[in-house]
Amino acid sequence: MTRKLVVAVPVISDKQKQSILDAAGAYGFTVDFYPNAAAAVPHVADAEIILTNQPEPAKHAPRLKWFCTTNAGVDPFLKEGAFASPDAVLTNSSGAYGVTIAEHIIMVTLEVMRREPEYRAIVAERGWKRDLAVRSIKDCRITLLGTGDIGQEAAIRLRAFGPASLTGVNRGGKNPNGLFDEVVPQSELDSVLPRTDLLIISLPGTLETRHMLDQRRLGLLPDGAIIVNVGRGPVIDQHALEAELRSGRLSAALDVFETEPLPPEDSLWTCPNLLITPHTAGNMTLPYTRQRIIDLFLEDFENYCAGRTLKRKVDLKKGY
Amino acid sequence: MTRKLVVAVPVISDKQKQSILDAAGAYGFTVDFYPNAAAAVPHVADAEIILTNQPEPAKHAPRLKWFCTTNAGVDPFLKEGAFASPDAVLTNSSGAYGVTIAEHIIMVTLEVMRREPEYRAIVAERGWKRDLAVRSIKDCRITLLGTGDIGQEAAIRLRAFGPASLTGVNRGGKNPNGLFDEVVPQSELDSVLPRTDLLIISLPGTLETRHMLDQRRLGLLPDGAIIVNVGRGPVIDQHALEAELRSGRLSAALDVFETEPLPPEDSLWTCPNLLITPHTAGNMTLPYTRQRIIDLFLEDFENYCAGRTLKRKVDLKKGY
Repeated sequence: MTRKLVVAVPVISDKQKQSILDAAGAYGFTVDFYPNAAAAVPHVADAEIILTNQPEPAKHAPRLKWFCTTNAGVDPFLKEGAFASPDAVLTNSSGAYGVTIAEHIIMVTLEVMRREPEYRAIVAERGWKRDLAVRSIKDCRITLLGTGDIGQEAAIRLRAFGPASLTGVNRGGKNPNGLFDEVVPQSELDSVLPRTDLLIISLPGTLETRHMLDQRRLGLLPDGAIIVNVGRGPVIDQHALEAELRSGRLSAALDVFETEPLPPEDSLWTCPNLLITPHTAGNMTLPYTRQRIIDLFLEDFENYCAGRTLKRKVDLKKGY
Repeated sequence: MTRKLVVAVPVISDKQKQSILDAAGAYGFTVDFYPNAAAAVPHVADAEIILTNQPEPAKHAPRLKWFCTTNAGVDPFLKEGAFASPDAVLTNSSGAYGVTIAEHIIMVTLEVMRREPEYRAIVAERGWKRDLAVRSIKDCRITLLGTGDIGQEAAIRLRAFGPASLTGVNRGGKNPNGLFDEVVPQSELDSVLPRTDLLIISLPGTLETRHMLDQRRLGLLPDGAIIVNVGRGPVIDQHALEAELRSGRLSAALDVFETEPLPPEDSLWTCPNLLITPHTAGNMTLPYTRQRIIDLFLEDFENYCAGRTLKRKVDLKKGY
């Protein structure tokens, strides 16, 4: 019986296809390529492994052993009935997006600090105003809520700007790779917020993280603080944040929202002190990211074929 | 006879004023403060030292010994008759702007690479498009034309993004503080341009640098290269660059122009593949920059009073 690997990755090079074919062939797998998850759905009934971005094929693959999503976030896979196969293991591509998301974080942070939206409007009118007061990452007290791949890649880059402090917040309070000045456990988040000028959020969307930044905690941030959210929208109480932005007390750059796409009638579109990006921080539009996704998959493919534990296995109960 | 120091710095704190008063008093200087250079002009006839941004007061100070400009660029001081006093020495505030200009460089580089102007337009229409192909500083071959304070502060930050290479270009070919992978002399610029994905220019405006990037040299850059100019506009042949931008072969972020303000009728305003900022990279809108200007002035004030050479003395013939 042939073993079947289904690959449905929207943008994939011939070289990347060949590297998958080579690895699969060595272990007796055939590989079917499809342009996207929807196109793969009718062909996964006998699939043992699926590599794609969207969850749909998992519902139609009763013999599935391993589903690798090209995304880092796995919230769509946590629903009841997401997998037709009782044996399916889920892995994600955590580790592929840190570089592109870290660059996004630095970009939007500087855009907010350097009043770039206002300068864009001035330039659109062919104006020559130069005197808007700006801020700097230098000497800034930065808190990174989430110290995984994204938080670490951001910390590496932010360090070079000479911040006053880089404080990590995670579950265990451990300092990954020593990249942070200090790391405190999430239970002590309240003590960190009052000394945070820039709060960078890269948490996954889980029951536990939902509205972690609620009205009370937002109120703990000092006047003028900036929030950058590249994790999941529901981590922040969007309604409470909007009030803080409209009052002018806080500024924010949001790449994720409680509902996506952000509905056209949503009041956030006209909210001042807010830079909106349409969930572009960590998608697959950077060639480096796409190569990392393939590399990480092939690494776990070797683990799978050797009967070892998969490195990026997701705990479906925890949600990451 | 009292010795007179005139300080005309637009935004200055009481604490900064006091630090100048303290230093000046110790050497028998009186200090007059004015809100700007124009307001100081009627009061500089007997000034020994002037600290301000604009050159006008120098024309009206026949007894001047030292003029410290709060700017880094000194092009307005190079004109015949700029100084009424034959003995006047000029210093600049080179070293005060590296931090803010380096942050500007990183911001606009990422904006161009990550298609931020296009995403701004999409968001303005409440759109939710996410699939524009983006680029990254990671693995990018970067050339910094100019390796002074600005080039070095930029290099420190760019290094953290994992570029393929950081090549400096300066007069002597020396590698300041070892921050660059290699440094080549300006005479070898032609050999570096074909292997440059991102060209960052921080050169002063002098006769020697005028149109250093002419049509021929722009043509040496590979397809898709990005130019960031935070030095002086005339370093680039703006007409030749516009043709490259309109053809789509190159992209650019320009903070400086051959004529400033950029005239409202200039065709650059509608040029594609170009991010315009109105000379905002290195002005005095950042508190850190303003403090550095005072600190650097006070350092050279001690040198002046002790009869030592001034650290940031400008060679009026070379123009920097």
